[in-house]
Amino acid sequence: MDNTEVENDYVVVRALGENVQIVGLTRGDGTKPQHTENLHAGEVMLLQFTRNISAIKIRGNAQIYTKHGLVPCGSEE
Amino acid sequence: MDNTEVENDYVVVRALGENVQIVGLTRGDGTKPQHTENLHAGEVMLLQFTRNISAIKIRGNAQIYTKHGLVPCGSEE
Amino acid sequence: MDNTEVENDYVVVRALGENVQIVGLTRGDGTKPQHTENLHAGEVMLLQFTRNISAIKIRGNAQIYTKHGLVPCGSEE
Amino acid sequence: MDNTEVENDYVVVRALGENVQIVGLTRGDGTKPQHTENLHAGEVMLLQFTRNISAIKIRGNAQIYTKHGLVPCGSEE
Amino acid sequence: MDNTEVENDYVVVRALGENVQIVGLTRGDGTKPQHTENLHAGEVMLLQFTRNISAIKIRGNAQIYTKHGLVPCGSEE
Amino acid sequence: MDNTEVENDYVVVRALGENVQIVGLTRGDGTKPQHTENLHAGEVMLLQFTRNISAIKIRGNAQIYTKHGLVPCGSEE
Amino acid sequence: MDNTEVENDYVVVRALGENVQIVGLTRGDGTKPQHTENLHAGEVMLLQFTRNISAIKIRGNAQIYTKHGLVPCGSEE
Amino acid sequence: MDNTEVENDYVVVRALGENVQIVGLTRGDGTKPQHTENLHAGEVMLLQFTRNISAIKIRGNAQIYTKHGLVPCGSEE
Amino acid sequence: MDNTEVENDYVVVRALGENVQIVGLTRGDGTKPQHTENLHAGEVMLLQFTRNISAIKIRGNAQIYTKHGLVPCGSEE
Amino acid sequence: MDNTEVENDYVVVRALGENVQIVGLTRGDGTKPQHTENLHAGEVMLLQFTRNISAIKIRGNAQIYTKHGLVPCGSEE
Amino acid sequence: MDNTEVENDYVVVRALGENVQIVGLTRGDGTKPQHTENLHAGEVMLLQFTRNISAIKIRGNAQIYTKHGLVPCGSEE
Amino acid sequence: MDNTEVENDYVVVRALGENVQIVGLTRGDGTKPQHTENLHAGEVMLLQFTRNISAIKIRGNAQIYTKHGLVPCGSEE
Repeated sequence: MDNTEVENDYVVVRALGENVQIVGLTRGDGTKPQHTENLHAGEVMLLQFTRNISAIKIRGNAQIYTKHGLVPCGSEE
Repeated sequence: MDNTEVENDYVVVRALGENVQIVGLTRGDGTKPQHTENLHAGEVMLLQFTRNISAIKIRGNAQIYTKHGLVPCGSEE
Repeated sequence: MDNTEVENDYVVVRALGENVQIVGLTRGDGTKPQHTENLHAGEVMLLQFTRNISAIKIRGNAQIYTKHGLVPCGSEE
Repeated sequence: MDNTEVENDYVVVRALGENVQIVGLTRGDGTKPQHTENLHAGEVMLLQFTRNISAIKIRGNAQIYTKHGLVPCGSEE
Repeated sequence: MDNTEVENDYVVVRALGENVQIVGLTRGDGTKPQHTENLHAGEVMLLQFTRNISAIKIRGNAQIYTKHGLVPCGSEE
Repeated sequence: MDNTEVENDYVVVRALGENVQIVGLTRGDGTKPQHTENLHAGEVMLLQFTRNISAIKIRGNAQIYTKHGLVPCGSEE
Repeated sequence: MDNTEVENDYVVVRALGENVQIVGLTRGDGTKPQHTENLHAGEVMLLQFTRNISAIKIRGNAQIYTKHGLVPCGSEE
Repeated sequence: MDNTEVENDYVVVRALGENVQIVGLTRGDGTKPQHTENLHAGEVMLLQFTRNISAIKIRGNAQIYTKHGLVPCGSEE
Repeated sequence: MDNTEVENDYVVVRALGENVQIVGLTRGDGTKPQHTENLHAGEVMLLQFTRNISAIKIRGNAQIYTKHGLVPCGSEE
Repeated sequence: MDNTEVENDYVVVRALGENVQIVGLTRGDGTKPQHTENLHAGEVMLLQFTRNISAIKIRGNAQIYTKHGLVPCGSEE
Repeated sequence: MDNTEVENDYVVVRALGENVQIVGLTRGDGTKPQHTENLHAGEVMLLQFTRNISAIKIRGNAQIYTKHGLVPCGSEE
Repeated sequence: MDNTEVENDYVVVRALGENVQIVGLTRGDGTKPQHTENLHAGEVMLLQFTRNISAIKIRGNAQIYTKHGLVPCGSEE
């Protein structure tokens, strides 16, 4: 296991409503859900892309802080 | 498997309408669809180019956050 | 296969009209079409230069987002 | 053990109310809580992503200082 | 074959008139035309310097997007 | 022992009141207090993340100088 | 002994009053005072983090020049 | 043959009049013309320094786009 | 002996009064004076941190040019 | 022969009058003229420092484009 | 002998008066004068830190150009 | 012989009067003149630090273009 993996960029998801879902999708030949994390209103999650996850899908009212700016999610705007 | 792959850039797709499709096209000698992800209105997806995917095609009303700026997709503008 | 290939730059093509064609031309001794992707109006494609492709030709009404700025394609301006 | 791991980025959590929880989630095939740290009002924690932790979940009234800016957590805004 | 070759810079040629010619000249001891690509009005080509090509000659009415700015080609100005 | 460890970033804690506590938490599988340093009012401590410490918890009235800005700690604001 | 250690960042302590103390704390499993340097009013000390020292504690009226700005120490402000 | 050679800087020559000559001079112990390329009015050439060429001489009315700015050639100014 | 040591940063001490002392303190387990240089009024010394010296103490009226700015030493301000 | 040599910086000489001379002086133990290139009025030369040449002497009315700015040569100013 | 040594930073000393002395002090366990260069009024010297020299002392009326700015030496100000 | 030496910085000397002397002083244990180049009024010399030369002394009326700015030499100001 190579420690360089911990040097990756991270994004921040801030749940504005209940039932915000963060789904990590697997890297590689297939692209399947690997893990789903649920956030309650007000909770914040910081997460990295990893060896196992190359795509992240987010559902529910939330704000996503990324290097491309603040991205609204759900009906919130 | 080399962990440096997780250091790649990512783009963000924000679905504005229903049935937004994100199609990953395979890297290499052929260029074929590898995976299709469907987003509902309001959902957001963060995704990287990978060892397997060197092109991404997006259909439906969406906003795409990239290092070249915000790119509108579909009839939305 | 070296994963460093996935660290390359990408461009974004946004189709403004029907029948936008993106043709990947092969790298190396010859320069031949390797793959043609067709976009419908409103569709967006993100694509990288790869081991196989060192030139990309685009036809039809489109906007091309590159590191040298936004390049109009076709009759659109 | 490679020392390069200590070169990672860090974030700062400042608890504004009681019972702020910082949960480190494990990197790798599974994504499970690895450690939970509780902060009292006024306490501050500086923390890094590590070999073991690729996601961090935060609950309670707090401010999170990140490279994407200051992210409010909980009911505080 | 080393993948680092795909990390090179690219230029963009936008044809303003018919019969724009892009000629790749060979790298190395001799400097001979290796490939000629013809663009119709409105077509756009993105191209890299490669192992085989160290010079590019362009004829006809076109705009060339480069890191040194936008270079007019042909009678257009 | 690799000297690259001494190249890490440092933060600065300035105690504004008595009994400022700086607790280093261990890196790795567990996350336990490794060392606690107490500062009197007016004292300043400069400290790095190390091979042994991946999180730092601070209690009491203090100002923390970090790359994300100046973070107040305790009742001070 | 690797010379890269001499490439580290340095901080500057300027004593404003008598009896300014600079205490180097040891890197590694324990965190103990390794060396104490006393400055008289007006004296200046430039110091690096080293293989042996990962934390520095300063007492007395002084100004500390760091990459996070100028940090006052002691009663001075 | 090392592909790093294709990562070099390039300059752009835009012919304003007829008979613009671009002469590549050889690298190494001798400095002799290696190749001469002729441009007609309006033609543009993009070219790199290579393993074989360390100097380039240009004659005729032209504009040369370089990292040091736009350099006029010939009687044009 | 590795030449990389000569790539280190340097600071500049400008003596404003007589008897400016620059004391180099040894790197490593102990921290002892290694060398003392005396400057007369108006003299300037440029000096690097080295394999042997990780801290520098300065006494007397002087100005110290560092990457953190200009630091006054002694009674001068 | 290492290709990294082709990555060096280049300067541009623009002859304003007749008989501009560019003399390459040899690198190494001796410093002797290795090659002299003559430019006519209006001609431009782009040239690199090489394995063989570590100094360049220029005579006559010319403008020299360098990373330190535009340097006039000869009586021109 | 490693050529990387020639990549070091340089400083510039401009003598404003007669008898400007530049003394190179030896790197390593001892710190002794290694070489003294005398400049007459108006002369300029460019010099690098080297394998042998880690400190430079300057006496007399001069201006010293460094990366920390222009440092006056001697009675000149 | 390592080609990295040709990647060094260069300075530019522009002679304003007759008899401008550029003296290269040897790197290493001794510091002796290695080569003297004479410039006539209006001549320009571009030169690098090399394996053999770590200091350069300039006499006469000249302007020296360096990364620290434009340095006057001789009586000219």
